[in-house]
Parts: sequence; structure tokens; C-alpha cells
Amino acid sequence: MFRIDLNSDMGESFGAYTIGGDEEVIKFVTSANVACGFHAGDPMVMDRTVKMARERGVAVGAHPGYPDLQGFGRRKMALTPLEIKNDVKYQIGALKAFVEAEGMRLQHVAPHGALGNLCQYDRDASRAICEAVREVDDSLIVYYCAGAVLGEEAASAGLDAKAEIFVDRAYQDDLSLVPRKTPGAMITDEDVAIARCVRMVKEGRVTALSGRELEIKGDTLCVHGDGPKALDFVRKIRKAFEREGIAVCNFQC
Amino acid sequence: MFRIDLNSDMGESFGAYTIGGDEEVIKFVTSANVACGFHAGDPMVMDRTVKMARERGVAVGAHPGYPDLQGFGRRKMALTPLEIKNDVKYQIGALKAFVEAEGMRLQHVAPHGALGNLCQYDRDASRAICEAVREVDDSLIVYYCAGAVLGEEAASAGLDAKAEIFVDRAYQDDLSLVPRKTPGAMITDEDVAIARCVRMVKEGRVTALSGRELEIKGDTLCVHGDGPKALDFVRKIRKAFEREGIAVCNFQC
Amino acid sequence: MFRIDLNSDMGESFGAYTIGGDEEVIKFVTSANVACGFHAGDPMVMDRTVKMARERGVAVGAHPGYPDLQGFGRRKMALTPLEIKNDVKYQIGALKAFVEAEGMRLQHVAPHGALGNLCQYDRDASRAICEAVREVDDSLIVYYCAGAVLGEEAASAGLDAKAEIFVDRAYQDDLSLVPRKTPGAMITDEDVAIARCVRMVKEGRVTALSGRELEIKGDTLCVHGDGPKALDFVRKIRKAFEREGIAVCNFQC
Amino acid sequence: MFRIDLNSDMGESFGAYTIGGDEEVIKFVTSANVACGFHAGDPMVMDRTVKMARERGVAVGAHPGYPDLQGFGRRKMALTPLEIKNDVKYQIGALKAFVEAEGMRLQHVAPHGALGNLCQYDRDASRAICEAVREVDDSLIVYYCAGAVLGEEAASAGLDAKAEIFVDRAYQDDLSLVPRKTPGAMITDEDVAIARCVRMVKEGRVTALSGRELEIKGDTLCVHGDGPKALDFVRKIRKAFEREGIAVCNFQC
Repeated sequence: MFRIDLNSDMGESFGAYTIGGDEEVIKFVTSANVACGFHAGDPMVMDRTVKMARERGVAVGAHPGYPDLQGFGRRKMALTPLEIKNDVKYQIGALKAFVEAEGMRLQHVAPHGALGNLCQYDRDASRAICEAVREVDDSLIVYYCAGAVLGEEAASAGLDAKAEIFVDRAYQDDLSLVPRKTPGAMITDEDVAIARCVRMVKEGRVTALSGRELEIKGDTLCVHGDGPKALDFVRKIRKAFEREGIAVCNFQC
Repeated sequence: MFRIDLNSDMGESFGAYTIGGDEEVIKFVTSANVACGFHAGDPMVMDRTVKMARERGVAVGAHPGYPDLQGFGRRKMALTPLEIKNDVKYQIGALKAFVEAEGMRLQHVAPHGALGNLCQYDRDASRAICEAVREVDDSLIVYYCAGAVLGEEAASAGLDAKAEIFVDRAYQDDLSLVPRKTPGAMITDEDVAIARCVRMVKEGRVTALSGRELEIKGDTLCVHGDGPKALDFVRKIRKAFEREGIAVCNFQC
Repeated sequence: MFRIDLNSDMGESFGAYTIGGDEEVIKFVTSANVACGFHAGDPMVMDRTVKMARERGVAVGAHPGYPDLQGFGRRKMALTPLEIKNDVKYQIGALKAFVEAEGMRLQHVAPHGALGNLCQYDRDASRAICEAVREVDDSLIVYYCAGAVLGEEAASAGLDAKAEIFVDRAYQDDLSLVPRKTPGAMITDEDVAIARCVRMVKEGRVTALSGRELEIKGDTLCVHGDGPKALDFVRKIRKAFEREGIAVCNFQC
Repeated sequence: MFRIDLNSDMGESFGAYTIGGDEEVIKFVTSANVACGFHAGDPMVMDRTVKMARERGVAVGAHPGYPDLQGFGRRKMALTPLEIKNDVKYQIGALKAFVEAEGMRLQHVAPHGALGNLCQYDRDASRAICEAVREVDDSLIVYYCAGAVLGEEAASAGLDAKAEIFVDRAYQDDLSLVPRKTPGAMITDEDVAIARCVRMVKEGRVTALSGRELEIKGDTLCVHGDGPKALDFVRKIRKAFEREGIAVCNFQC
């Protein structure tokens, strides 16, 4: 029997600004990575998003990012490990208040954007994030991109770590994601993408952009929900998983 | 036997900017109202301030304010009660993470600046703050200015509430503080100020600016620590309290 | 011969966030009120918006607001007149740089949201804005809501002032807008709205919500461009104006 | 006859936060690099600083930085050249409004902190800054650290460029500054520092940290004014310059 968590970034609206189709995608996922007010999100959005997750039975994780709303956390910033640790601690704490106010438990922490990319290779930053997680609540799960050093650092810190795989992204030979600007970075054919996912989950293998066969272990699959096409795609993934005997559930069920 | 908590606003530095003499005043107080990153403070400052409080055995409270760093939270903003509730919830949560990471328990919540002034008379805002407190952690104490409706709302919400009195501020007949710009608003003579404090604590009475005698109940006394003169004053207060048999301790001892 | 300027708020996107249908509405208006980075907008958005205006031959004005991105400048803030003056000066200057870089001249200044509402009745705030305008460039036109004290203050300051009227808003007897939450605040019937506009422009009269007939003088008409329905409406207004012999042009033509 | 401009960073306070001893150091310098609200400064501070400069006859330049108040613009951010260009254009425009409101002309642009460091070697960033300067006002002077590629790019863009030298910093063989953390980075002996400055101005030579003799051309000398010691040092520099026949004046006199 196979199983996987389906996660999506959520709560990335801000004030009068709406981004993402949270109300729709939440119907199809099992975990939500909720922005914490640094790269996106604000207290009103966090409150609404967490309440929506509770109503749908979706587990909530913190999605901390760089303090750069204008850049949506996608611009690398030269923070010290201690700055990263404290920024992450702050964001986890803020979201945790909303989650616990709804009688839920925060499930995980998944770094966002450029901070997430940094965790692919930067041990100091990864360690800083793990320290923040452990000091706030050592039962929190760390989501890391399959292959990222964050996974190893989380394990070293005694934290539960779950590997994230991507439905529509090509992999390099070291399991890092092919940068978005590189040709072939995105898997645009939906059937191909779904077949890849199924294979990653059931066989633990994926074909890199180079053609090489890689071993990959995924505990949670990241999907997107912006736009009707994206939603349609998520619907198809869920159907395919059902057909293939892949159960979909988060780490709190 | 008389006793009172001595509190001071702290952690109001930001990035490269330093404000207040936290390292010094913390030696003399029993509770710290720590800024949470909205009107002042940032994750680095919060981390340092909370660690300093732990080392000195000082209890930590959240000091949430308006999201207005430029105005230091002193400019009234027309937020809805729900915006206030969520902004306060966010700030409490963020600070709580730093406090619990140090193995401490957050003691209280004391609204800052213009948000604090609003709680003097605005029931909706006060109720919003109490809801935030209760939903995050109903064992948190609410600090309110003696006479403020926040005290009543906290009690209605089933929260423990402590009345704050001020060492250097004149009172109006309704126990609200005389606005800073009004002549006589500040008690500048230190001996007079100390005598007033002692009388408030021991007799529960204070003379208003109008000359009228008021009943006042103070559980916690707010002092300032910016500058050598302020520190000297705090030192004198503590000596006077010792002499008068007034014990100084927070609500966690 | 009748003539009127058609203006719309623009450049209110921010970073990854898009708001408004600028690319479409700009085809139908003669002036753009461009956000300046406080309540909305950022340097990238301002650059794009100003370039778009140049290409379409649309005049650009500054749309300064409160420093409150989270509240989109719609939450009143208790700023001093000097704070308002400096905040407005800063925003005009910032936008002016983008406008002049494109070889254009900034046309006007139109306060946004809660700051604009304040100018309905607050002489100190209105004067502060006029001082900012005059000190930066006294050839700038001040847009004020018909009936607002800002119009009088601009005239007193020796500035050119143009009265703004609204296509879809009901008026109170003192020419102030009926607050959005009041029933009847919005003119929802498009034909009624257009007929009102035509009458305001040609006869200088409008029927208040109370039924009373008011004199009103409008130099510029504010339209919205968010959503296909709004755009359709603007298209209809332009057709009606053509039919009625009302020329549409800004104050630079 | 020798002459040099003496500049200092100013206007880096923010809201309730004060940094630097502007009121004092302004008495000794000929040009002020004024923060523009991104890494430091706000409209109130800019207004006060520019007025102070006018009263003292000090020329004003823009000191644009990264949009990172928390990091004081000292943390490198991965901005695209277009983002840099627009951020710089915005900041120059904002300050220019305050300068021209005082009847002065903005003199120069000097990038701050990590953005300034980037201009040491990054041609794309340097070009972006020069484009912003040229598009806003091509009579503005670009200040660049002696040896930085920004100087070459400014010249290529047809802009007037002035080389900045530092009174208390050691140089590497390529004329870049020795990083602050490296031993020997700061020239702490005041007499040595002053003798170095005099030699740089009169002979156009300086001894690198390595001991190697370098040619260096300095048009403007950067001094600091935070604290009584720094001010004393500036006073000594001015006396030494007088003694050595080095005239001190900005580029507007």
C-alpha cells in the first residue's frame, strides 16, 4: 500500500491583494504550507486560511520566507544563520498562535522560495532553520526538497523530516530542481507529469533531465492551485492516485 | 504586606537602531513588556531581549502595537476589531515562540502606545484584544491601565487582569492619564512621584490633576529606563519600596 | 462645447500581486492616478505604469496615500499635518522621477483612500497636501472631490484645482459621497449612472440621495477598470459622451 | 592647490529611532549623503536633514540602498538590474523633491552599504544605477569608491563621476576596501589615518594592506560623525588639511 501527502502553498494573499486559488485547491490537498507574513500573508489572511484548513480537515504547516514582501521571498538575501533562525522562529510562532486558537496542532515547517532553495545546499542555513523548529516545538515535521541538505540536517537535529517532490518540475542529476529558466524545467504534459509522480511514489525512481535514472523518495507532493487549469490538474492527480492504489493523507491522520 | 510588580517596555530597538537602556533597566524590574515587531522590535531584538530576561529572572509579556514602525505605534489607526484581534494574536504568537524556546512561560500581554490608549475607552477594541489573548493562551495575564475598560473586558472574558499604574504621569478624574501635551501631565519632581507611588500601593489613593482624591488599585508599576536619569529614578523607587515594606515581584513568583 | 477628463486609479499592483485591469482601462481614460509605493505600488510597477501611460498618451498624476500597504491606504491614520506633508512630498517626488524619465510632465496630485476622505473636511490635512504640492512643483494640478475643502485650500495656495466627480457614487446634500456601507451608496444601474454623469457635466446638477437637487461642477470623472464589467461600463460612458458632444481630454492637451 | 570634498552619510534615523550625530558632523563636511527611506530615513527625517544641509551650506546627495530597513541595507539582496534601477530612481526622485523644495539642487548619488559594495565589481548593477541617475537628471554626479567599476560605468554613461576615498579603511591591492572583519581593515591610529589622507590627496598614492604602493585618486573623502570621538577626528582632519593647503569644498561651489 502506497501513500503520500499532497501539499500546496496557501495564505499568500496580502491585504487587498489576492494570490492563489486557496478556496478551491484546499478541497484537494491534505496539507497546507501557510505563509507567515514575511514574504506574503498577513494576520487576517492567516486567520482565514487556518480556519479554512480546519473546516476541510487539512493539516497546517508554516511556510516561512525572507522578509521581502516586494520580492515575494524569491530574492536571495544575505542573512546570517542567526538571522535566519530568528526570522523562522518568529514566523512559526506567529502561525502557531492561529493554528492552536483553532484547536489544531501545527504539523510542519516548509521554507519558502529563495530560503527554500538555499536549503538545497547550505548547511548553516539548514541547521539554523532546524534549530528554530526544534526550539519552538520539536514535534514539528520539516519538509525538505528531496535531495536537499535540509533533510540531513533535520535528521541530525532529531527532527522528523519528510521529502517533498514536485509534480511539474524536472530534476538534475543531484536531485536538485532544474532552474525555472532552463528549457525543460517544467513538465508541461499533464499525463507525463502524472506518470512521473506515480512512478516516484511507487517505484522511488525518476528520470532526470539528463536522461539518467535517479532514486528519489517522496513523502509529500507539492501541487499548485492558481487558475482553473492547475485545479483540473490536481483533480486528475487525485484520480490517478486512486486508480493506482496510492492513498492520500497528511502526517496527522 | 504590600507587593507590586515593576514593569518596563523593552526590546523596542530595531535592526541597526537602538532605543531604551534595556541592559540596565532590566536589573531593576520584575516584568518586561517586549515589543513584537509591529511598532518596534524584530526577531533578533526579541531573541536577545528574551534571553536577557531569562538571565535576570524577569518575567516576559507581549507588548503588541499597531503595524506602524515609522510612528512607533503612537499614531492611532482605524483598524476593525477583527484586524486588532488578528494583529495581536500574531504578535503574541511570535513572542511566545522566543519565550518558550528559552524554557519560560509568557506571563502577560500589555498593549502599546495608541493601541493601549484605545483600550482606555473602546470596548470593541478591548474585547478584540481579550479574544486574541484567550484564544492563544487563556492563562496569560492582561495588563491594563487602571481605569481602562480593558480591565473590565478582560474580567468578562475570564482572563486574569492586572492594573498598571504610572510613576510619572498625572491622572484625570476618570483615572485616565493626562495627555502628555497638557501642562502638569508629567510628575517631574522625583520625590513627589515616589511618594505618590507609595501612596497608590499602600493606600490605593492618588490625587488627580484637578486636586480630587481618587481611588486607584495598582498591581504593576510602569517605569522607564532610557537614560542615566531614568535609571537613577528606578533605583530610588526600589529603595523607597524597600523602606516602605513594599515587596517587588512579578506574577510568576 | 463640453469637455471632461476621465481618470482612473492605476499602478496599484505590488510585487507579485496584481490588482486592477490597468492594461485595459488605460485605453479609455485620459489621466491616470498612479500609486506611489505607500498604500500600493512599487518602483517596478510605477515604471511599467508610467511607460504604459506614455505609450497611450495618458497624463500621469500622483496618487499618494497613507503608509499602510496592508490596509491599502483605506484605514485612517492619525498623522500630523507635517507628517502628511512630508509623506505626500516624498511620494510625488518618487513618481515624478519616473514620469520625467519618460520625457513627460507630472500632471496632477490626487490623494488616495482614507487620506482623500480626510480632505473632504480637514483643512489642516488639505493645507499640508497643498504645501507639499506647491513646494515640489506649483504647476501641478490638485484633484479634489467636488465639495471637499481640499479644493478651497488648493485655490488659497494658488494651485490649479480640478473637481472630481464619480460615475457610480451617490451624493449627500453637502456633496460628500454617501459612505459605501449606506444603502444606495452605489449607483448600480448603468444607464442611470451615465445619465447622471452627462447631467453633471452639461447642466452642473445632480440629485442627492435625499432627493434634493444639488449644483456640482466636475472637471474630471473617476472610473474603474477592474473586471470586464467595469471596462464595458467605461466604454459605454465614452460612447454616451461622444453622442452628447462631451469631449474627453486631460489637462495637458 | 589641492582640494577635496568631505562627505558623510546622514539622515539615517527613522521614526522614533536616532542614528548618527548629524547635527554635529554637518558642521564639518561639505556634502551629505542622505538616506532615502529604503535602508534608512523617512520623509520626516529627509525633510529635517535637507533643511539642516541648506542652513549649513552643505550639498545634498542621494544615498540609495536596498529595500531592507531591518538590515540597514547591509545585507546583499539578489535584485535584478531593472529592480536596482527602479529602486534607485525612486529614491533619487523622493529625495530630489525635498531638496528642490528648499531651493537647492541635488548634487550627487552615492549608493549605500551592500548596494555600494556591489558596485565595486558588478557591471550590470553599476550600469543600472547609472541609467537611473541619467534618466532622472544627467547633471547628477555619481560618487564611486576609488577603484570600483561604478566609476567606469558612470563615465561610459556620460555622467560626471567622483572617486570616494576613506579616511579610516585599509585598501587591498586592487583598491577595494579590506573587509571590515579582516585584521587591519580599520586604520585606528588617527595620526596615521590623517597622514594617509593627506598623501592620497596630494600625492595620489596609498600603501595597501599588503605593503604595496598604489596609485589612488580621491575627489571626496568619507568621514563619520557618530560619537564625540568621530567628531574630534573630523575636526583634526580639517585642521590638517588647512595646514597642508588642501581646500575643502563640494562640487557645487
